This record gives sequence, structure tokens and C-alpha cells, in this order.
Amino acid sequence: MSNAFFSDLLTSIAERGRTLLRLENAQIDPQTRVSDLVGLCEKLLSGRGEASGTALAREVLDRYAQLDELGRQKFFYLLASDFGPDVARLGAALDVWSREQSDIAATDLHYASEPRRQELLRRLNRAPGGTAALVDMREHLLELRAANPEFKAIDRDLIHLLTSWFNRGFLVLRRINWATPANVLEKIIRYEAVHAIHDWDDLRRRIDPVDRRCYAFFHPAMLDEPLIFVEVALTAEIPGAIQPLLASEREIVPLSKARTAAFYSISNCQQGLNGISFGNFLIKQVVEELRRELPKLETFVTLSPVPGFMRWLGSKGKTLVGADDLPVIESLDDPTWPQDKQFAVRAKTLLEPLAVQYFLEERSSNGRALDSVARFHLGNGARLERIDWLGDTSHKGMLESAGLMVNYLYDLDEIEKNHEAYANQGEIVASSAVRKMLKSGTRGWRSTAPSVKAQT
Amino acid sequence: MSNAFFSDLLTSIAERGRTLLRLENAQIDPQTRVSDLVGLCEKLLSGRGEASGTALAREVLDRYAQLDELGRQKFFYLLASDFGPDVARLGAALDVWSREQSDIAATDLHYASEPRRQELLRRLNRAPGGTAALVDMREHLLELRAANPEFKAIDRDLIHLLTSWFNRGFLVLRRINWATPANVLEKIIRYEAVHAIHDWDDLRRRIDPVDRRCYAFFHPAMLDEPLIFVEVALTAEIPGAIQPLLASEREIVPLSKARTAAFYSISNCQQGLNGISFGNFLIKQVVEELRRELPKLETFVTLSPVPGFMRWLGSKGKTLVGADDLPVIESLDDPTWPQDKQFAVRAKTLLEPLAVQYFLEERSSNGRALDSVARFHLGNGARLERIDWLGDTSHKGMLESAGLMVNYLYDLDEIEKNHEAYANQGEIVASSAVRKMLKSGTRGWRSTAPSVKAQT
Amino acid sequence: MSNAFFSDLLTSIAERGRTLLRLENAQIDPQTRVSDLVGLCEKLLSGRGEASGTALAREVLDRYAQLDELGRQKFFYLLASDFGPDVARLGAALDVWSREQSDIAATDLHYASEPRRQELLRRLNRAPGGTAALVDMREHLLELRAANPEFKAIDRDLIHLLTSWFNRGFLVLRRINWATPANVLEKIIRYEAVHAIHDWDDLRRRIDPVDRRCYAFFHPAMLDEPLIFVEVALTAEIPGAIQPLLASEREIVPLSKARTAAFYSISNCQQGLNGISFGNFLIKQVVEELRRELPKLETFVTLSPVPGFMRWLGSKGKTLVGADDLPVIESLDDPTWPQDKQFAVRAKTLLEPLAVQYFLEERSSNGRALDSVARFHLGNGARLERIDWLGDTSHKGMLESAGLMVNYLYDLDEIEKNHEAYANQGEIVASSAVRKMLKSGTRGWRSTAPSVKAQT
Amino acid sequence: MSNAFFSDLLTSIAERGRTLLRLENAQIDPQTRVSDLVGLCEKLLSGRGEASGTALAREVLDRYAQLDELGRQKFFYLLASDFGPDVARLGAALDVWSREQSDIAATDLHYASEPRRQELLRRLNRAPGGTAALVDMREHLLELRAANPEFKAIDRDLIHLLTSWFNRGFLVLRRINWATPANVLEKIIRYEAVHAIHDWDDLRRRIDPVDRRCYAFFHPAMLDEPLIFVEVALTAEIPGAIQPLLASEREIVPLSKARTAAFYSISNCQQGLNGISFGNFLIKQVVEELRRELPKLETFVTLSPVPGFMRWLGSKGKTLVGADDLPVIESLDDPTWPQDKQFAVRAKTLLEPLAVQYFLEERSSNGRALDSVARFHLGNGARLERIDWLGDTSHKGMLESAGLMVNYLYDLDEIEKNHEAYANQGEIVASSAVRKMLKSGTRGWRSTAPSVKAQT
Repeated sequence: MSNAFFSDLLTSIAERGRTLLRLENAQIDPQTRVSDLVGLCEKLLSGRGEASGTALAREVLDRYAQLDELGRQKFFYLLASDFGPDVARLGAALDVWSREQSDIAATDLHYASEPRRQELLRRLNRAPGGTAALVDMREHLLELRAANPEFKAIDRDLIHLLTSWFNRGFLVLRRINWATPANVLEKIIRYEAVHAIHDWDDLRRRIDPVDRRCYAFFHPAMLDEPLIFVEVALTAEIPGAIQPLLASEREIVPLSKARTAAFYSISNCQQGLNGISFGNFLIKQVVEELRRELPKLETFVTLSPVPGFMRWLGSKGKTLVGADDLPVIESLDDPTWPQDKQFAVRAKTLLEPLAVQYFLEERSSNGRALDSVARFHLGNGARLERIDWLGDTSHKGMLESAGLMVNYLYDLDEIEKNHEAYANQGEIVASSAVRKMLKSGTRGWRSTAPSVKAQT
Repeated sequence: MSNAFFSDLLTSIAERGRTLLRLENAQIDPQTRVSDLVGLCEKLLSGRGEASGTALAREVLDRYAQLDELGRQKFFYLLASDFGPDVARLGAALDVWSREQSDIAATDLHYASEPRRQELLRRLNRAPGGTAALVDMREHLLELRAANPEFKAIDRDLIHLLTSWFNRGFLVLRRINWATPANVLEKIIRYEAVHAIHDWDDLRRRIDPVDRRCYAFFHPAMLDEPLIFVEVALTAEIPGAIQPLLASEREIVPLSKARTAAFYSISNCQQGLNGISFGNFLIKQVVEELRRELPKLETFVTLSPVPGFMRWLGSKGKTLVGADDLPVIESLDDPTWPQDKQFAVRAKTLLEPLAVQYFLEERSSNGRALDSVARFHLGNGARLERIDWLGDTSHKGMLESAGLMVNYLYDLDEIEKNHEAYANQGEIVASSAVRKMLKSGTRGWRSTAPSVKAQT
Repeated sequence: MSNAFFSDLLTSIAERGRTLLRLENAQIDPQTRVSDLVGLCEKLLSGRGEASGTALAREVLDRYAQLDELGRQKFFYLLASDFGPDVARLGAALDVWSREQSDIAATDLHYASEPRRQELLRRLNRAPGGTAALVDMREHLLELRAANPEFKAIDRDLIHLLTSWFNRGFLVLRRINWATPANVLEKIIRYEAVHAIHDWDDLRRRIDPVDRRCYAFFHPAMLDEPLIFVEVALTAEIPGAIQPLLASEREIVPLSKARTAAFYSISNCQQGLNGISFGNFLIKQVVEELRRELPKLETFVTLSPVPGFMRWLGSKGKTLVGADDLPVIESLDDPTWPQDKQFAVRAKTLLEPLAVQYFLEERSSNGRALDSVARFHLGNGARLERIDWLGDTSHKGMLESAGLMVNYLYDLDEIEKNHEAYANQGEIVASSAVRKMLKSGTRGWRSTAPSVKAQT
Repeated sequence: MSNAFFSDLLTSIAERGRTLLRLENAQIDPQTRVSDLVGLCEKLLSGRGEASGTALAREVLDRYAQLDELGRQKFFYLLASDFGPDVARLGAALDVWSREQSDIAATDLHYASEPRRQELLRRLNRAPGGTAALVDMREHLLELRAANPEFKAIDRDLIHLLTSWFNRGFLVLRRINWATPANVLEKIIRYEAVHAIHDWDDLRRRIDPVDRRCYAFFHPAMLDEPLIFVEVALTAEIPGAIQPLLASEREIVPLSKARTAAFYSISNCQQGLNGISFGNFLIKQVVEELRRELPKLETFVTLSPVPGFMRWLGSKGKTLVGADDLPVIESLDDPTWPQDKQFAVRAKTLLEPLAVQYFLEERSSNGRALDSVARFHLGNGARLERIDWLGDTSHKGMLESAGLMVNYLYDLDEIEKNHEAYANQGEIVASSAVRKMLKSGTRGWRSTAPSVKAQT
């Protein structure tokens, strides 16, 4: 109840920024502008100007917002070169450290070596709308980082601060449905990254029926902006294909018959928060919410794409099959192949064991699963539950995954153990059904698979 | 409007923590418990246990909450000694630095020297109710810090993180009035530090009439807990005494006649946020809110105590007066002296110039104003506007301030300049009326006062 | 979620009225004022002035608010005499009716006979704050009604309209707890009619602990004003005395052990809604809320006073007992009698069967239970469950009820049947334990009790 | 602030209904069903079943919702014939009345003649979702009323009750913008009756830009359902054509330059509230809101269609023009005529004076303006400000209004006077510019126009 007390003003945080008028000085030479901007940054950092509260911080952000890409590049360049640590203070701390390696000397070293831009960024964050502006700034930085390796130090500081500010303890889980404000829904449409939402009708089919759920994380300082969201279908059985789930005509599952929650799409919304992971927390909290609301749900599972499978098939995978099977693999480039039923039967026999091989035995150089989606869910402690033949017959699904989808199972009693097995020994936990497909493979390409762990 | 969208769930952040059941294992030996707790901390930090989401963080906080003072001391001791930086990583970074003093090597040094407890605290913050628990932890630490100098390093890390998390950009300004939830109002009563609130009727007199305002900052992760609040009286003229403002029977000033907003009390609420300053931002935002709502307001001023005056009078002040005035000063220890009108006249002649001396010419060793309240407002860019004779005749007011109060004026067009003059040159800006009181002093104790800056 | 959409503006209804400035014309002769006011009423009713929206309605209410009691009496007198039905229209409708008794002629008669003040009141209700003002007007009317029988017709119209506007479908149930706004809580303190709330600490003990609940109905047009509220104690067993429930030191019942919800106080808040009953709906909805939230609750019961018992004892009761018992009854006027243990034993033997007689066999002239509280709960379908000897030893409890309390049981499966038995046949449903007390009575005063219905 | 206190639960009113499971008994014979339903109605009305709270009311509504059109017709038939007044009670009241025509006898007559279905409807309204269900019931009734004149009595009762329940004092004004929940916006799209909204992009253009506003009235018991809404364009000058306002590419007017608020569309949303007028109140409150928010707005005006003009031209209008002008009028049936510039010039000369004639001099049989939109705005006290040649060149605009639009001016200082002139004397207030067009007319069809009132 006390919550409601804050309902109107809470978002003042986010709103203050938006309504501010932006400065207009478009004719100024960009170079001058950047140096002016850096001058303001120094002023903000010096503490002079503190008395005027957050106005100076807002002015810096407003001026930054007027920069074009070239201007931003210059600005970041100066941020990298001129806002490192205070050298004199660092030297003194190093002196002390060289004499005594005490706890306090270590922390002295730590605080003395803090780049000055960290404090600058913290002060910018004080401005109305500051948090959103810094997320945007990081997005700009990422666009320029590849070509400007010296920006890495800035990015490190931005990641450090954003990770701290977007601490899971500050995030708010919010159900998204047909009563959600349109400005939020519009972003759900725009940010959906797995199975595109075509229009408002398509969106409504995913959030309005009783057997569909959507949840997002929000940050109190950016209340209009979903950070990440997940779409869930409530079903009787574990679903094996995405198209029936998304069909415009389909039978709605009454809540009384729902036993499974299938997470079929999870999308990040903010480029500027790239690398700051919320997905793990989101899935787990949604599982908890659903269990509380619908105690009859027994199974929490994903319906996931296999985005790297075709790429792998075309390189390593090809080398594993016999010469007579090679044409099969090559034929997969034509996404209409499932129409040839006979071919499809043969493809299935060939591809399913290869898929199991791809999941269970292949590893990246640092010992992780090859498939990016697999890495995410296995890292969360899920297990590979089932291979879904022709689970995604969309153009994208055929070209990336040869139509395959998979289910990852979230069993809250097992995820910790699974996670540790994966994180520490690189073991990939899979259902016995999946493992059997590996064992039953009869072709010569099977290698031994010591790292596969069964779970039933 | 989109704000309202979040009204119910936003505070789930704060609530989740409160409803959790606390573990019950009271019989365990404290020593064992602390080492268990540290083990859990290591597990949380190691990333093992990440899969179980925020439950492990919550368990650490729950176990911490069961510690008695001795247990906490042991825990902090281990936090200081065992959760410093990763020595190997630090050594490597120092090696690199010794070879090249590049930007990136500097930031390597910074991140390598980060005490491990910082990441531990960030992970604890992920738990439901984590932020409030860490503020409590800091409060406990402060109680033990004086006797345990080695805890300074922990405190530094806590201050660093809390300052970042309680960034002004995340704070929410909220008006406190008679429609505010009782659980918040109860804390206003409890935390009022300047002029005690005696009961609910007294509280109501301060927040309910149209000529009274109260505003507080809140943090989204601690929505029930005001961080700092300020009480304001809307008046026709600048008020010169506190008792009439707080009287139970008084005339209410209609809004149409209010020209002055007098900030007569500002109180911090969270011991655990000691040293993390919000007052500057609070006063300025309240000035802006009031100007927007009531464009007829012309003057923004405080009515402030002079908490260090009697102490100063008893030491330095005494040395400045002639022998015949000494008994006057000694008589001030009896707080009933204003009843002797004749004495009061004489005291006024003596004390007012001394007070001006105290404000304008005395300095602490680092060049700041002697009076703590003066330091706060002058540091914010206010100017010393007026000395209010017998402004506070309460027992406390007589014993600490010899009954004096002062007004500090917040003129938004001047605060930046004032602040810089004070911050950079140690100049104390005062009205010409106050300055004249200094000049008009005829006694021998007057020293030259080059650092007083006039403002009219 | 869509709810939140309305959170800020919904109450604009209620607030608009409050902020309006009231007219100031205090010097005018009251008689003139009333006739002016009636002139404005005619204007409002005539439809002229409709174009200025709700301003005219507000003006009528503002002028009414300035009337003193004499002015109000005059106003009501004119409302009774001059705002009856349109006589011409009524005559025409009667003519038609005398020729044909059709459905449509009947409704013509109905609408033609509507007093003009009904439409006037509906138009007044359009004003900001109109609903609250009309509730106040009814309160004023009730104060004058006894001495002015001609006001009965007005009251009938007010009851008719208020009953329609305060339709249960428009009421909102709201839990009252320690996070409820103080302006609402203040009214809970003020309106508690059964067991007075002494101060804010006493209030907090009734709404804050986990084993205490309080719920109120609100109307959307009067959101600050509770209409009726009920206080509930969650207990292990059915409580038999009020003082232990209200004790400042008591053991809190953990929710896991609560099996009983005891409604120990229900209070109406608005005098102006006297006779418009919400209590029935309130109790039933609270039972449903509690069952949903706490499925382990098995028993829903009241702990109720017996406000008419001593009065009855002093009149009818006295005539039923033997001469040697008469002094016992007379001694009850000294409320300290329970201190005499021996006397108390004798009193119990005498009074309990008399109480059962009072409840089960005595009837008002229209066949209802004698006791007003009994009438309410029996009319709701509750059954008389238990007599609680010395259940309320407060001064009031001793003087009104001889210390007796009773429990009424709400068994949702039975209330309909119980209600019908009571409403149709005047049967009072009681537990077999209570009935046995009647049967076991050995004194001569027992009459036959055909209308007592057992339920076990 | 206390408002927020209610944010979550307030709409429980509206929501309770929606989540209820509906009964399933589809196989039952409709006739049986209706008589069962009527039996339940009698039970609800008899007060038996009161103890079970609102469940019985909900059951009646659920069973009603399962009726097909035939079933509803039967139900209404019984409602008309069997739920009239209590004849015995009415007879008694008539007897009294025949003896004495007192105030109290008149109200006795009124309450005795109340059809029993009124109380039935009030009790149905107690159910969760009851209000919305009764609005739906009225919609059904309206569909059947033309063919069933005996339903008029029911309609009268429904109108009476709905008018009382949808009292303006209970309505909530709400701004509709891009942050409004999608389920509300969807209805705005669906219900727009003047200038159709084609899709979500079209909607967004009408509610999201800073120079566009939309406001709706809501009722607390139907919070998801707008009752009526108005669309407003903020402009520099009074707009003279609708297509530029609705163009997808257009220049946005900065708020600093807006001087005019143009109401270009007002739509009712609930068929079941047909005849219960909110438009008057809506426009006036929106004018007040806009004036408060944007003090620079000087002019409040509509941009309105002339829906009856072509019909009038084709009948009466034709008779007023000379033979050589007749072909012009006949040519208007081809909506492409504006493309023939020469023809358009001639048409303008002819049509504008005719339009002024249509507005200022023609009257319906009861003395009102002929044009329905004119009746609404003139009845609200607006004045006819300007005729806009080719203001609406859409197909509909050409065929109904010959492309004409008009502006009605809302001058809050004049509306009362204007309204009275129109309501009492049938005077139509028009600007002198419009009047001059009448005077400047040279053709023979000009009649004298005593009832036109000038206003400058």
C-alpha cells in the first residue's frame, strides 16, 4: 500500500529529463564545441559549479546530445586521454605500496588509480534523465569502439558503472499485457529479436490471451524503457514447434489445463547495456512468479532456436559425414526442402545425431558450448531436454538452424548443480532422450563424449 | 501517465525483502556462524551459486542480520583482512604498469586493485531488500569503526558504493503531508533532529496547514524510508524566531500573502548514509518546486540554529571580551537569563558582534566556517543574511546558541558565485547588515577581516 | 494494470471540491440568503444555467455550506414545501391512469409524481465535491428531522438517491494498515464506535501486527472518507473476551497458526449515510478476501457486545426471576462485581440462561431479535454461536451488557438458509451449545421456544 | 497523494466482474431459461438471497449474458409486463391521495408507483461488473425497442437509473496519449465516429504530438471503457479545414505558438448510454484544463461537420434557388466537383449564403436548429463563428456537407447567455461575419430573420 504513495512522483526521475528544452547552437564548429564540452566536464568534475545542483550536468548531456558522430569520436578521444587517473595521486599511492603491502595501502592504490572519468560519469548521472543519456552514450561508444581500440578503457568504466547501477536489486519486474501503455508496447514490437512481431495484432496475440505471458525488467530511472523481456506460452505439453504457437488462428489453452510454461523468446532492448546481463535473473523470477500464480504448472522450459547450427554444419559438420550424405547437407541451403517428404525423412536421420553432436560434444576454445543460445541457458543451469525436428520452418529458422529448435528445461531444484557442472567442468547436462540420440548414432563421426552428463 | 503503469510493482523491490522469513538458528555458536557466513560470501563471490539467482545473497544477509555485535565485529574483521584485492592479479597489473604508464595499464591497475568485498557488496545488493540491509550494515560498521581502525578500508568501499547507488539521479523528491502513509510519517517524527516533534498533533501542525511544507528524498529501493527531509514555513516576512513558527496556536498565512519560504529544519534519517550528502540537492530542488507552484514567493531563506556558538564563547570568545563582560558570558549558562530584561539588553550588545565575529572571522584549521550549520549552507552557496536575537529560547537553543538563530539566504542567481568564493578563497558572503554589525563593534577584540565579502 | 492508469486523476472527483474557495458573504441576513439560495436552486433545476456546467451547482452547495442551523431549517422547509412534484403533470398522469391502468400509464404516474427536489439533488451531485456535500446535508437533515416531521419527505428522497449512488457495486474495499495515509487513519480513530481507539499507538496495535486486519469500504467520489470499517483479529481459537485482544502486551499469533478470523468491531463513519447499510456486504467480502489470502482459516466469527442486555434485565428480565435472585440483578449496577468471585459464580448461573432467553425467545413487536447487534448479524445469516461470560469487563461492557459478549458465526454455506429462516419465520439460529443452556435452565421463567432452530 | 492510496484496488470494481467464470448450460431450452431467469430476478428482488451478497445478482447477469436475441426479447417482455409497480401498494397510495393532496401523499404516490424492475436493476448493479452489464443490457434493449413499443417503459427506467449513476459528479476526465494503456487506445480507434482513425499510426498522430490532445470521460465502475472522448488540435489560428489537421506529414505547432484549441472530433463510445449526454460537460472541462495548463490559449473553437446540409439542399434548399442555379445543386452529387475550379467558384457564391440560411433561419418543428451538430454546440452555448468553404473534401464530407465545415466558438464568458437565448427564445447566436453573409445575400430566397442574434 505504501507503494502507491510513490506512484505519481517516482517517475519524475525519468520524466524530468525528457521535458527539458535542448540548447540550440547548431552553427558552432564541432571542434570548438567538443573542447567547450570538455571544459564543462572539467568544471563539473572540479566541484566548482556544484552549487548549481544538477543543471551543469544536464548542460553537459545536452551539449553531448548535439554532437554528430565525428564530434562524439573527438569527445571520447579526450575522455580516454585526459580523464584517466590523477597521476600525482597514483604515484604517491604506488610509493606507499612499494613500502608496505597493507590492506589500506591496497585500497589507496585502488582509489588513487580510479580514472577521473568515473567520477565525471557519476556526476552526469545526477542530471534529470542522466541514466538514460549514459546508456545512449555507451551505445555510441560501442559503435565506435572497434575502430578506436583506445576507447576500451572508457567502455570498461561505463560497463563498471552501469553494472553497478543496473544491479538486479534495483530492477523491477513488470508484466506486459494489453493494458500496458502503448509507448512501452511499441518498444516491445521494436525490440523483439527472436521471432519478429509484425504489427499490433500480432503483438496482441502474444500478450492478451490467457495462455500467453510477457514480462520485462525496468529500471526506476528509465521507467518507459523495458530493459529485457521474455515471452511465455502456457501449454499442456512441452511445445515442439514455434509456428503453431504464433499462429493467428489457434486454440487457447484454458489456465486449468496449463501444465507447462514455455519461454519462446527473450530479447534485450538496450544496445547501450550490451554485456550487462539480466536474462538469468529474468527467467528465474518469471518462473517464481508463474509458480506462485499458477501452482499447477509443472514444467518450465524454453523453445529455443539453434542459431549456429547451419554455420557449424557447413564447416565442421560437413567433415563428419560420409560422401553420400554430403549432398543432403548441401541441399539444406534451399529452405523449401521440407516439402520433399522423402528427403526430409533422410535429412532427419542424418541431422538429429549431428545436432546432438553439435550440442554435446563440440566446444569453443574456452570450453563452452558452441551455440550461443545453448551457452546462455546452460550457463543458467538449464538442461538440454529435447531436439525439435522442424520446430521452426520460417525462412530464418531454415537458414540458421535447418529448422531445428530445442527445449531447455529449467528445474529449479537442479539448476544450481547443472550450472556448477557446466561452469566448473564444462559438462553439458542433457536428458537421457537426447543422450540416447547420440548413442544411437551409428555413423563414423561419433567421438567419445565424456563430458555429457545425463539427467532424468 | 506512464508513471502510473508502475505504481503497484515498483516497490516490489523494497517489499520483497520485508516479507521474507528470516532463518532461525539461534543456538549456533557465533564463531561458527561467522565462519559459515564468510564461506557463503566466498561462494557468492565465486560465482558458484549464481544460478540460484538472488537467494544466496539473501541468505548471507539473513545470517548477517542474526549476528550480535561481537559477531558483526568478527565478520567485519574478516571482511577487512580476507576480502582485499586479488594479490596475484594486482601484482601482474603492477608489473605491466612498471613497464608502461599507459591509460589502459592505469585502468588495469585500478580494476586489479579493487577489493574483492566491493563485488561481494554489489552481489549482496541484488537480494530483495539488499540495499536497505547494506545501509544497516554501514550503520553497524560506524558503531565499531572508532575502536577498530582497520575497518576504515571497509567503510571506504561502503561509502564508495552507497554514494554511487544513492546518486542524486536516482532519488525521488516527495512531498510529505497529512495524506502520507503513517509508516513514513512515523519516521519523520522519529528522525527530526533539529526541533523535536513531540507527537502526532505536533507533526500535523508542521505538514497539514497550507502555509507549511515538508519534502523528503526517497530511493526507489527503500521506498518506505525517507533519506532526508526538510520542513518549510511559508511566511510574509523572513522569520526571526522559531517558537512562533511552531506554536500550536498561531495564525495561518494564506498562500496569497506568502512571499517567503523559510527552511527551518533539515534532518538526515539514515545513520548508515552518514557522510553521503543529499542536503544540497534537496534544498535546491525544493526551491525549484516551490517557485513553480507559488510564483509569488520571492525569498528563500533558512531559519537556522548556531549549534557551536556557546562552545566557542566558552573558549575563544571569552578571551576576546573585557574583564567586565566576562560575568555576562558566564551568566549565559543559566538558560533563564532572558527573563532579566536589563541583563538581556546588555547581553545583546555584547553577543551580537561576537556572533558576527564567530561567523565571519573565525575559521577551522582547514579554513572553513567554525559553525557546522554555517559550513553546510555557505558550502551550498547561501549567504549569511541576518542574526536573530533570541530566535530560539528553548532549553537546547539557550544552551547551545545563547538563543541566537540566523537566516541563510538562498538566491539562486548568486549561489554559484557565493559557493566558489567560499570554496576557493574561503570567503564568507554576508549581507551588508550583518557586516555592519561587525564594523560597528567598538570593543578591542575586533580583528581585521579581509575575507568577508559583502553582498547586498 | 489498467487500474494504475487512473491512479492520479480518479480522485480528482473528490479533490476538485475541496480546493474551491468558499464564498464570503457573512453579513447578509439569513432569510435573504435562504431565499437567494432557493432562487439558485430553481435556476439550476430550470436548466437555465446548464451551459455554465457544474459551477452553478457548486455555488448552491457553497451557499448552503454557509448557512447556520436556522438557515438550514428554513432551507429544508422550502425544499419540503416548494420542491414537491409538478402538480399539473401529476394531475395529467392521474387522469390517464383513471382511464387506463396500463404499464405505461403506471410509469407515467411514477415519473410525474417525482418530487422536483430529486432532480435538484441529482444536479447538485454534479458539482465537484457534490456527493460529500449531499452526505453532509443529510446529516444536517437528520439532526432536524425529529423536530420537523415535514422533513420526512426530503429524507425519503435523500435516502433513495444516496442508496442508489452508494450501490454496493460502486464501493471499493480497501485494507487499512500502517501504510495507509494518515488522513484516513485519523478517521478510523475518530469513527471507531465499539471499542474506542485511544491514540495512534492503540491504532497501530490494531492494524499493524500480522494477526490483525482492518478493512473499509470507500466510494470513488469520497476517497478520503471511509464509509464503514471492520477490525479483525486472527486467532487460533474463537476468542471469548475483548480485553486480551486489545491488550498492549500480548503474544502475536503467527499466520501459520491462525485458524479463526474474529470480527470484533464494525463501525459506520458517515452520519449522513445512516440507514444505508453496507455492513452485510463488508463482512461477506472480507470473509472472501481472507479465505483467498489465508486458506487455512476455518472459522469466521464475531466477538460482539450485547448492548441491550442490561436494559432488558432491568425491565422484562427482572420479572422472570425469583425474589431471591432480584438482589443479584440489582447488584449488577456496580460494575466492580466480578471482583467478588463468589457473587460472580452465582451471577453466572443466573445470567447465562437469562441471556439465552434474551437472545432466543424475546422479540420486538415486529418479530425481530431484541438486541440490535443480534438483529444485524442474524439478519446477515450468522448464527448465535457462544455466550462469553465476562467477555467485556470494561466500564461500558459491564453497564450495558453485564460483561457478556457473544460470538456470531458466519458459515458461508449456511448464511442463506439462516437468513431466510430468520427473515421469513423469525427463527433465530443458534448452536446446540447455546440451545442447551436454554434447555438446562431450571427456573420457572422459561417459556416455550418454538422458534429456536438448532444448528450443529 | 491520498489518491494514490487507492490506485490498485479502485478498479477492483471493474475487474471483479471480468474474471468471473461464466456458467455453462448451453443445452437448455431458451424458454425455460428465460423463466428460470425471471425466477431468479424475483428471488433477488424478494430480498431472499440477500444474505449471499452479490452472488445472486451476478448469477442473473451471467444467465442473461447467455441469452440470444430471442431470449432477450422474451426476458424484456416479462420485465415490461411483470415488473411494473406493486398494484396493491399503488392503489393504497392513490386512495390516500384522493383524500388529501399533501406533500407526503405525493411522495407516497411516487414511491408506490415505482416499477419493481427499478429495484431489480439496482440490485443487479451490486454485482461485480454489474454496471457494465446493465449498459450492455440497454444496448440490447435499444436494438429491440423499435419493434417492441412496450419496451419503452423499461427503457425509461434504464435511462433514469443510468443517468443517475453516470452523474457528471462521478465521471473522471482523463487525458489520452501515447502512454495510455493499449486496451483503452484500441477503443478510441474503434469508437471514433467523425473522422475515422485508420490504424495505430494514425492514432498516434492524433494523441502523441505536443500540439494534439485527446481527453475522455470514464466511470469508476467501468475503468477500461471510455464513455466519450474529444480530439483537440492546438493551432496558431482557427483552422478552416480538416484534411491539413489530419495529414500524416505536417508541421507541428510548438506550444509557445499555440493560441487556439480546436475541437475537431467528439465521439460517444457506449451505445447503451445513448441519450445520456456527457458532451457538454466534457467540452467545458477540457476548456478549463487547457486554460490552466496553457494560459496563452485565447480561442476555444470547434471544427465541425454540417451533416444535414446536403439533405436539406436536396429538399428545402432546392426550392429557394433560381432555375439557373438548380443544375449547380444537382452537380454536387458528384463529389469530385471541386476539381472544376470555375464551377467551384460559382458553387461557393451560391452555397455559402444558403448555408447561412440553413443555420440561422431554418428550424425544426420544435424550434431548434436543423443541423444536429449545430443543435449540440448551440445548446451548449457556443456561437456559430465561421463557415469553412471546402473544409472537408473527404468523400463523406462532400456527400453530407458539400465540403462545408463550420467553427463553433466557446467563449466561457458568453456561453450562459448564448445558451439561454437559444434555449428560451430559439435565437441562434452567430458572429457578425456569418450574419453579414446572410445580409449580403442578394437572391430572392432570403426571408426575414428576427431570431438571429449578433455577437462580436
